[in-house]
Amino acid sequence: MHKIIRVDMTGKTVRVEDVPEKYRYLGGRALTSQIIYDEVPPTCDPLGPYNKIVIAPGILTGSAAPSSGRVSVGGKSPLTGGIKESNAGSPTSQKLGRLQIKAIIVEGQAEDGLYLLKVNKDDAELLPADELKGKRTREIKKALFEKYGDKVGFMTTGVAGDYKMSMAGICFSDSEGRASRYAGRGGLAAVLGSKGLKAMVVDDTDAPGVEIQDKELFKQGQRKLVDALRNQSVTKPGGSLNSFGTAVLVNLLNEAGGDPTRNFRSGEFEQANDTSGETLAETIEKRGGGTMGHTCHPGCIIQCSNIYPDEDGVEFTSCMEYESIWSLGANCGIGSLDSIAKLVDLCNEIGLDTIETGVTLGVAMDIGIIPFGDAEGAIRLMDEIRQGTPLGRILGNGAWFTGKAYGHTRVPVVKRQGMPAYEPRAVKGIGVTYITSPQGADHTAGYTVSPEILAVGGEVDPLTPEGKIELSRYFQALTAYIDSSGYCLFIIFPVVEIPSGMEGMVETVNAVLGTDWTLDEVSRRGMETLRVEWEFNQKAGFTKADDRPPDFMREEKLPPHNQVFDVSDEELDLIWKEFCG
Amino acid sequence: MHKIIRVDMTGKTVRVEDVPEKYRYLGGRALTSQIIYDEVPPTCDPLGPYNKIVIAPGILTGSAAPSSGRVSVGGKSPLTGGIKESNAGSPTSQKLGRLQIKAIIVEGQAEDGLYLLKVNKDDAELLPADELKGKRTREIKKALFEKYGDKVGFMTTGVAGDYKMSMAGICFSDSEGRASRYAGRGGLAAVLGSKGLKAMVVDDTDAPGVEIQDKELFKQGQRKLVDALRNQSVTKPGGSLNSFGTAVLVNLLNEAGGDPTRNFRSGEFEQANDTSGETLAETIEKRGGGTMGHTCHPGCIIQCSNIYPDEDGVEFTSCMEYESIWSLGANCGIGSLDSIAKLVDLCNEIGLDTIETGVTLGVAMDIGIIPFGDAEGAIRLMDEIRQGTPLGRILGNGAWFTGKAYGHTRVPVVKRQGMPAYEPRAVKGIGVTYITSPQGADHTAGYTVSPEILAVGGEVDPLTPEGKIELSRYFQALTAYIDSSGYCLFIIFPVVEIPSGMEGMVETVNAVLGTDWTLDEVSRRGMETLRVEWEFNQKAGFTKADDRPPDFMREEKLPPHNQVFDVSDEELDLIWKEFCG
Repeated sequence: MHKIIRVDMTGKTVRVEDVPEKYRYLGGRALTSQIIYDEVPPTCDPLGPYNKIVIAPGILTGSAAPSSGRVSVGGKSPLTGGIKESNAGSPTSQKLGRLQIKAIIVEGQAEDGLYLLKVNKDDAELLPADELKGKRTREIKKALFEKYGDKVGFMTTGVAGDYKMSMAGICFSDSEGRASRYAGRGGLAAVLGSKGLKAMVVDDTDAPGVEIQDKELFKQGQRKLVDALRNQSVTKPGGSLNSFGTAVLVNLLNEAGGDPTRNFRSGEFEQANDTSGETLAETIEKRGGGTMGHTCHPGCIIQCSNIYPDEDGVEFTSCMEYESIWSLGANCGIGSLDSIAKLVDLCNEIGLDTIETGVTLGVAMDIGIIPFGDAEGAIRLMDEIRQGTPLGRILGNGAWFTGKAYGHTRVPVVKRQGMPAYEPRAVKGIGVTYITSPQGADHTAGYTVSPEILAVGGEVDPLTPEGKIELSRYFQALTAYIDSSGYCLFIIFPVVEIPSGMEGMVETVNAVLGTDWTLDEVSRRGMETLRVEWEFNQKAGFTKADDRPPDFMREEKLPPHNQVFDVSDEELDLIWKEFCG
Repeated sequence: MHKIIRVDMTGKTVRVEDVPEKYRYLGGRALTSQIIYDEVPPTCDPLGPYNKIVIAPGILTGSAAPSSGRVSVGGKSPLTGGIKESNAGSPTSQKLGRLQIKAIIVEGQAEDGLYLLKVNKDDAELLPADELKGKRTREIKKALFEKYGDKVGFMTTGVAGDYKMSMAGICFSDSEGRASRYAGRGGLAAVLGSKGLKAMVVDDTDAPGVEIQDKELFKQGQRKLVDALRNQSVTKPGGSLNSFGTAVLVNLLNEAGGDPTRNFRSGEFEQANDTSGETLAETIEKRGGGTMGHTCHPGCIIQCSNIYPDEDGVEFTSCMEYESIWSLGANCGIGSLDSIAKLVDLCNEIGLDTIETGVTLGVAMDIGIIPFGDAEGAIRLMDEIRQGTPLGRILGNGAWFTGKAYGHTRVPVVKRQGMPAYEPRAVKGIGVTYITSPQGADHTAGYTVSPEILAVGGEVDPLTPEGKIELSRYFQALTAYIDSSGYCLFIIFPVVEIPSGMEGMVETVNAVLGTDWTLDEVSRRGMETLRVEWEFNQKAGFTKADDRPPDFMREEKLPPHNQVFDVSDEELDLIWKEFCG
């Protein structure tokens, strides 16, 4: 019997509610965005009492479907001012799924300190948690495991959430309980900070498990998707993600001239190879004490995560993702994996989105606060953030805010969210996704990099502006659905390349929900989620003017291809034309 | 022969242009807003190369029409992100008018330092001005007078403009050349900072003077308006403005419960009388060395400005306006005129809008950076701004930015611009003006305080929400026209109260332009300026969501009347319904 848990931080009450019929077929992002749309006044202050946080596992999360342990967190973003869904892979999510909790809705604001939400089979309760304030997430993890046992899954915010910083991310536990998996983007940890919800522990002892309406169909779909994942070059065991992590993209993007370097001044980084997935794998292998091919949650076939050891072969941090290696590396002109690992670890400990952090440090370097390449300086700036000094408050509110503080206009953001690791001028489909996604600049919102760079699911010239609106729209709709299913976005590779992979995705969803949706229906539902998000944003005050690239990308030619971003404003306005009526 | 001077800061060229027919009948705000609308891409970065600054005297400025020495400065505001017109009274403007310069358009960006624009009868040229960087405006004034003679009128930015801070105002010289008259609001000095235009000096030797098409009509209109000004209780010699300055409003607003105190937590300030116009006049009288009833520009009948002396009777600063006394006084819980004078003087010296500065300090006190009432602390914070420290960068970008840096939501702004000295919950018509003006929260955009508090031009209950949309619309349209004429806004008192005063305003305008406009035509033209501003903002991305009060004013009851702001969103949306088509 599915349920929704509603947590009122003002009254300190926790209520278990039935799932309304209209939410019955929704999960993950589709559900968080719909609830935010239904319950949050679009013009409210993101850090005020009317915003809400919705935490929802995907439709399949907690089941045996492969790589399906994602959790979506939704709310009005203090970074973008629009609707936000940010997701992570974590056993915490799988436990919520197995407890048949469709969503946790956090509302109101505690005025008297910090609280922790404890969830188990029979109960959910709020407990005082002031002792976690200002602590590093490693210490929080330790405190939670000591108190609640190391079998629980957890969610927490870092000190950046306590400070209500717009680049504070929400931290989830990984397969072995590390405080390392982030629903990072959009500053949703600041919203938790404004509500006084510091952490959550989930104990799934005696959980009923995910209800499956058609077990035969589930097995069939599961098998198809597992086979596809095991046969696709990017996702297969020993494939590129498994062998080199997401950092396999470093050399690929650099070769394509799309690796944003030194605050998006070039598409090539001369030290790219020093920070590549290949070098990462080699370093982990050589040093020992780390793992390449690690999982963020049990049951993942792809296993693209990793654990990075220090020079002595002792576990140091997890995970060295492509995005983090790029943002804290090439984008800052930093070419040492060890320096990057220190910065990644600081992000994890302070509770920061690594992408926004790296983009912000890049802007700070462009301003001249510290020089490009200054890893020690970057570590000092991280300490300013941790301490909440005035400079830390500037940086902690992200790249747009930092640029604004110093009157600096060369800032790579859309809807005030920092751009990820693909240069829009060199990979134009992903540029369209950055610019038009209701989520702000977000590569995961419509990963056209698949056909543009990886030649998976087609092969498209990354440099041409032609056809990129349709391409991005297709990927955005499909992604919105994958983000709702609980599947990891990386199933997109077999799904767009291998027909039985797509069938497997649709069949497993149908099996759990008892539906008989076609692929068309799934795409339609993805579009419906996008429409809900777009409409929330319109009501919050967004217009076409927010679907625009930064001025400098229209003019500055990006080396080595010497391209500007040349998908026209008129074309950009066509992407959501069906929503505009 | 009227002309437009176009200054290209990128190419360092100055071009004299004919006035296009479409601009022939425009001046002041109508002209700055129209040129910004015509020439600036609405979505451009306010601090980027595509923004422009337009400086325009009013239609009558430089003529013998009474109190007509205003100068309008227009641009896209880095504070609000929308169109901006900010005006000041200054002989600099009168000199531009007498030189028949309708507008100076500043475009592009200098990459190689700071420049000064020197304007005289025959010529306009850009000269290097790096030596003015970082200097206090008093030092700049001194340097300009030494170099160009003390007969020139000037405009300059302070160090806040060099830092491109969003609360940097543009400083003009007063009647005796003090660096004290500000086109303060909206951060337009930051735009000049981004362009590298540090200052302007205007020499009107042998100027042809304002061309008047119908001299008889001009004399007639001038006489009518002079008579009305001399007979109206607020504006007459020895009347309230002349005797007590704009600070006459301190006690009036406090008695009405509409004096925003301690970051808009109350409508009453217990030390109001210590900072009132009456106390100010008494102090100046007692100490000597100051002046009550001073002019910002020659030819003003109202003479509401003042020069404030220190305890030893030596001139200290000018001017102690109501808005400044309130923002840096009651709003910060500071009840000493001497402390307020120090803060006013620091604003003048650094080049800051006193309103935004006081609102920002109030927010900083609400956050707890310093306590309310801490004048010494406020002075220290001003020094942080002057030095451009990280804390100074936060504060220097205004109240909204400061709240955001610290995750504080109780921030009295509309369109990110700090609210002036009238509490919207106690004076609801001015609340409608704050919320709906294309300029952001701005009392001068539609001064309904006239009938709501002063019983001038009607008598309206300030507490009722009824009829406030129509009232604000009327005042906004009339004001937009007055801001275009070059007249000081304060002519509004005789104009709305005495029919021959209104005739005088219309006749003087007709006399200069050679038109035969009726009062209806003048109002229509005011509305047209509002429409142009509204439309620019729409294209820049503004929507109804931007025409909203801060959440807290909808909920927190303001003492002593215990009122919330209760003009509904639906009513607010009606104000510009004729623009929406």
